[in-house]
Formats: sequence, structure tokens, C-alpha cells
Amino acid sequence: MSQKQQLIDQVIEAWHSLQKQSPLVQCITNSVASNYAANILLAAGASPAMIDNPFEAEDFTKISSALSINVGTPTTEQTQAMLISAQTAHQHEVPWILDPVGYGAILKWRSKTVDQLLKFNPTIIRGNASEISALAGNQIQSKGVDSTLNSQDVYVQAKSLLNHAKCIAISGKSDYIISKELDLVIRVNGGCHLQPKITATGCALGALTAAYSAVSASTIAALASHIHFAIAGKLAYEHAQTVGSFNIAFLDYVHMLDDNLIRQYVDVELVSCDYES
Amino acid sequence: MSQKQQLIDQVIEAWHSLQKQSPLVQCITNSVASNYAANILLAAGASPAMIDNPFEAEDFTKISSALSINVGTPTTEQTQAMLISAQTAHQHEVPWILDPVGYGAILKWRSKTVDQLLKFNPTIIRGNASEISALAGNQIQSKGVDSTLNSQDVYVQAKSLLNHAKCIAISGKSDYIISKELDLVIRVNGGCHLQPKITATGCALGALTAAYSAVSASTIAALASHIHFAIAGKLAYEHAQTVGSFNIAFLDYVHMLDDNLIRQYVDVELVSCDYES
Amino acid sequence: MSQKQQLIDQVIEAWHSLQKQSPLVQCITNSVASNYAANILLAAGASPAMIDNPFEAEDFTKISSALSINVGTPTTEQTQAMLISAQTAHQHEVPWILDPVGYGAILKWRSKTVDQLLKFNPTIIRGNASEISALAGNQIQSKGVDSTLNSQDVYVQAKSLLNHAKCIAISGKSDYIISKELDLVIRVNGGCHLQPKITATGCALGALTAAYSAVSASTIAALASHIHFAIAGKLAYEHAQTVGSFNIAFLDYVHMLDDNLIRQYVDVELVSCDYES
Repeated sequence: MSQKQQLIDQVIEAWHSLQKQSPLVQCITNSVASNYAANILLAAGASPAMIDNPFEAEDFTKISSALSINVGTPTTEQTQAMLISAQTAHQHEVPWILDPVGYGAILKWRSKTVDQLLKFNPTIIRGNASEISALAGNQIQSKGVDSTLNSQDVYVQAKSLLNHAKCIAISGKSDYIISKELDLVIRVNGGCHLQPKITATGCALGALTAAYSAVSASTIAALASHIHFAIAGKLAYEHAQTVGSFNIAFLDYVHMLDDNLIRQYVDVELVSCDYES
Repeated sequence: MSQKQQLIDQVIEAWHSLQKQSPLVQCITNSVASNYAANILLAAGASPAMIDNPFEAEDFTKISSALSINVGTPTTEQTQAMLISAQTAHQHEVPWILDPVGYGAILKWRSKTVDQLLKFNPTIIRGNASEISALAGNQIQSKGVDSTLNSQDVYVQAKSLLNHAKCIAISGKSDYIISKELDLVIRVNGGCHLQPKITATGCALGALTAAYSAVSASTIAALASHIHFAIAGKLAYEHAQTVGSFNIAFLDYVHMLDDNLIRQYVDVELVSCDYES
Repeated sequence: MSQKQQLIDQVIEAWHSLQKQSPLVQCITNSVASNYAANILLAAGASPAMIDNPFEAEDFTKISSALSINVGTPTTEQTQAMLISAQTAHQHEVPWILDPVGYGAILKWRSKTVDQLLKFNPTIIRGNASEISALAGNQIQSKGVDSTLNSQDVYVQAKSLLNHAKCIAISGKSDYIISKELDLVIRVNGGCHLQPKITATGCALGALTAAYSAVSASTIAALASHIHFAIAGKLAYEHAQTVGSFNIAFLDYVHMLDDNLIRQYVDVELVSCDYES
């Protein structure tokens, strides 16, 4: 069996585990994404809890199966909660995902928080091409929180981030998963051009990656969540071609995904098996 | 006329009053629920206002027809606003509903707030079975903010909470309304299994209970809101069987409910008329 | 060519510019509106960023093409961000829109913030009739954050606000745009009665007005956003007559609007060319 087929089988296994275990996922996320990310997690089979205050962060992270941190619209209290929960996750080996929304030279405060969070070794870092490039040390001009770079141009730069995390996921027209444990880059195709026209899809993808990281190793977790979204996006677009209706169909397909749909529609490529190190 | 039929008639009367008066309902709620709860209130006929800062809380509660407090994602400022508004509601006889999201041993900070809020005698306490059981003094293991207990197993425990409130409402597969004023337990059947797969439906139910408490006595208010949701959920599921589409159909039926639909679809049982005290 | 036809041509030009430039719009908005306003901006062609903390406000406003400030559910940190961003916008000539949600005698804290914000000369003030009337110095009894007055009765009062802003927009059954630069009042007809039954439509309209102000002069910006919503509301209602479904259709039409639909459905009247001063 090819390595690619092995990976797909593991993704299907991860999806089954998600349905069976319904892991508790703590989300510290932004005001735009909180409702949407919770609904995506519920639709996909996980159990979300948006505990984002510093007074309950430590106790809650200890009992959580995974943690998702997204710095989209930080407040002082949320920032404190992020640091406490990331440290707790690090100490108690709770897998956690970092989504460095808007990281870069303009948004200094959150970027400083992200720099501190990196010390607690996120399991997976997930972002768009501009954010990942900036995080990898490049001076880039982003346009607010949306990307101005292509994921394809950035995945080589992302390699340096494997010092901090086991896996880097870059979303874009195609998504790229850079795995330290497998020494591999995987391209995930699918989705549709309307997804960036729905706010917080990236944030929800980070939360779903956290959910999968509760039931599988980091590379499979990142791969599974990106395949989940890519297939749901592709099928939703066959049903609805405008943003409002598409978004509802997308939620429907995030919920309806099963092993048959994964096998039928999965579209991944191994970009590089001997990734230069 | 049977007591059950009398109750149903009063629920229909409450629904008519809600349409006519469109009561102003102050909501101090969580970041996940704020948009959804406001849309549910508007759809049902009420007039929501999400005033959740401590600087305006007192003045606004005084002019509100009802108050809904939900501790889902508390901040320090929101917590201050909750205490001020609950006290104001208590002093000025504004009916108010307490939704103790996540109450229990893990989430200590909000639980302490809830303990303080209880002193201001909420008109109705509404929660899922885990929350109500924990609030009644039992040591339970909840899974984040979702319930791990059945509503049926908890309603007897809930009795002790009638020291604090006139009425306790427990949501679950069937919902239970425990009334002090009528010395009665009522079971509300209906809804569908997809409702817990939509985030913030419980929170929105608390807000709707507040809206009904502005136009009717506590037992009828709790009964009316739970029947409203049970029928809307049942009818929505006939139209859509997946989470995204179901949620839209649910909002549609919350809006379309009328006296004919209530009479046709209401499904309640008086569980106990001589509730042991 | 009539003045009215000239205005419509400029609105169509603004719509084309919005698609081409996809301006970066900073939104400091309320918890109810954040997701919805971002989705409306994306659907309409703009690029939203909900940067609402005081530590990043100045740097971000400097690079934004427009700023939208909405005081719906203020926190202390958001209030600080509003003042910093408004001052920065004023200094750097970034067009900015003020939406004084709930302005009046009851909600004193935000009203004081709004009074301070006025010093930084918003490009456009947008609100419902109760808010605009209160802001113009009238003692009115509003019902929470929903209007108790008609837009038609208020537009004459609104004139005094032209000391602070270039343009005033009042939403209601018909909308009124009061322009200082053109010495003109324009009535925009359309929309449907379900729009006030969807929470945050007014807030999203403010954000869309900001987006248009990045690509056109103030009167055209206000006119374009209100026509955009009026047509999308009218067409959405032809497809769906209940709140949940209507809201999805509304998002679809906000996205699908184009020059042909504008020409076919625009319904505006010049109310007064010699506006008494």
C-alpha cells in the first residue's frame, strides 16, 4: 500500500474516532468566530467549550482533550487566558493548535503574544500564507487579516517553524501540511473559491484541527481537518453557488461527511518525500 | 377543563401577549450566543437588547421588561454587569432568568458568580441536567458545557432549588418544568436530536424564557418558551435533517409559530400533581 | 441628465470600485454584529478586519481604507480603541462612519463616548430614527436599541448634525440620506419589513457604508450602501418570507448585486434640493 493510501486510511480512522469519542475541545477564539467555530465542531462530531477567561483557563485546559488558540480579536483577559492555557496544555501534554491571525509588523500586540505562545510548543500551527510567512521571519505586507501570498509560495519558508511545532498547516487555494514527524509535505486540493468569502472559516478550521488532534497524531490531525473542509467545500458548492446558501450547505456537508465521502472525494498529493533539512 | 388544558390555554395567551407587547428583554449572555439569542428573540416577537456593561446595567434593567443572565463566557466587566442587573431586577421586580452554563467544580469562577446571583432570587433557573444537578448540590462530572446526565434523572434533585426561584426548567431529550407556585412538574416532549448539535440553542431558550416572563407568570413563561422550542424543533426537522439547514428552518418555525400550531403540536404531561415537599 | 440619474450612475461606479479595490475596512463593532457585519462586507466585495483593541488601534487605522465604529455592546477596551481609531482616522483622513447604537438618556456611558467621538468628525453618521433624533438633541423615549420614531419625521432634525459630519443616514421603512456637500436629502425606498427582525442589519449597514466611503465621496457612499441593502432586501423577500430563510437569501443578494440589478431596482427620490439652512 502506498504512503498516500496509508495516510488516507489513517484520516478515515481519525474521523471514526472523532465520532466515537466526541472530544472536549477548549477554544479561545475571536468574537467573529466563536459561534461559527462551535457550530463547525458540533457538526463534525466534537464537543466545543469556549472557555476564554484567565480565572478558569488552567483548570479547564487540564480536563480538555485539545485546545485551540486563535488571536483574532484579543482582549487583555483573553490574552492572559491564552498564555495560561497554552502553558497548561504544554505541561499536561494536551495537544494544542495555534492560529496566529494577523501576525505581522502592523499588529504588534497580538504578534508579541504569539511569540510568547510559541514557547509552549503548539502541536500544530495553522494559518494563511501571509501569517505563516511572517511567523517564519519574513517581512510581508498583509492586508489586514486576509492573505496576500499564495500557500504554494510559502511552504518552503514554513520549514523553520518546525522548531516550534510538529506540524504546520497553510490554508489557501490548495492547503499545505508540513510534517516534522513524517518528514513530508502534503498538498490538499478541494474546497471552493467561496470559502474565503465566509468569515471565520479559517478560524473554524483551526478549531477542527484541534478536535482531530485529540484523537490522532499531529500530521493526521492536520490532514484530516483540511480534507474534511476541502470535501465539504467542494460538495457544498455543487449545491449552492452564493455565499449565504453556500455557507449553510457547507455546515451540512461538514456534518454529513463519512468514510465513503472521504474515499470518493479525497484529493491529496505528497509534494516532497525527501524534504531538505 | 383539565389542568393540562388550562395550562395550554395560558401558553397560547402568553404567545399572543408576546406578539402584542414585544417586551424589551435585556440579555447579558455569552459571545457564542449573542447573535443567535437576539435573532431568536426577534423571530419570536420580543425586542432584545444586549446591554452587558456595568456602567449602563442598572439604568437599563430598570426600564427592561425582563432580564436574561447567561454565564457562558464571562468577562470581569460582564460579571459586574450581571450582579448589578440581577440586584436591580430583584429590587424593581423585573422578572429575570438565570442560565448557569457550566456550573460545577471545574469552572469555579463563574460558579461563584452564580452563587452570588442566586441571592437575588431569579424568577426562573434554566439549565441542562448536569448544571441543574450541580447547582442542587451534587458532585457531577460534566463534559465542558454539555450535559452528561438525563433531565429525567435530575428533576427530583432540582426541587431544592425552589428555595431560590419560583420555577426550574431542565432541558434535555424531554424538558422538565418544576413549578413552586403550582406545586407541579410538567414534562415537555418534542424538539429533535439535532438541537444539541446547534450551539447556543440552550442559551437562546433562556432568553426566550425571559421574554415570556415579561408577559406571564413564571410557570407559564417557562412552559411557553419550552413548548415554543419543542414545536419549532419538531417542525423544522420535518423540513431539514442536517444541522445547517435545520438551524435555518428552526429560526423560520420559531417565527411562524402561532396558536393553531401550538394547539396542534403541543405535547406536555403533568408528571406529578402532589409533588412531595 | 437629471441629478437623480447622475447619482445613480455614481452609485454604480462606486459598486464597481468596491469590487475592484476590495478596500480594507476596520470594524470596531458589537458582539452581536461582528460575525454578521464581516460576512456582509465579504459578500459585498470588501475586506473586513475586526481590530478592536486599544493596543493595535492606531497602527491599524493608519493602514485601513475606512473605519466603522459601532457602540452597540461597548467594553472599556473597545471604548479606548474607538477613541484612538477615530482620532487616527481624523488625523490621517481615513473616512470613518459612526453608528451611535442606543444613544440617549438611558445608556449614558456609550452616549458620552459618542459625544467624544463626534469631535473627530465622522464622515458619515448612520443610525435609526430614535438614535439620530436623540443625537440631534431631542429628548426621546427609545425602546432599547430599536427605534420608536419614523425616519421620515426625523430627517429635518438631523440637519444640525451636519456640523459634525458630511452626511447623515437614517434607516427606517424608507431611508433618508442628508448630504451637506450636495445640499440635498435623498429618500431610498425598498428593503422589506423582515429586515428589522434580523439582528445587526443596521450595524452591518454601517460597516458597508464604511466600505463604500473608501471608494467614493460621502453622499455616494451612504447612498450606495443603502441602495445595496434596499435592493438585496427586496429581492430576498421575493425568495423567502420567513426570517431564517430570508436572512440567507439576503446575504446571497448582497453578494449577487451588480450594475444591472441596481439599474433595474433602484428606487430613490430627491426629497429637497433647496434644503433650508
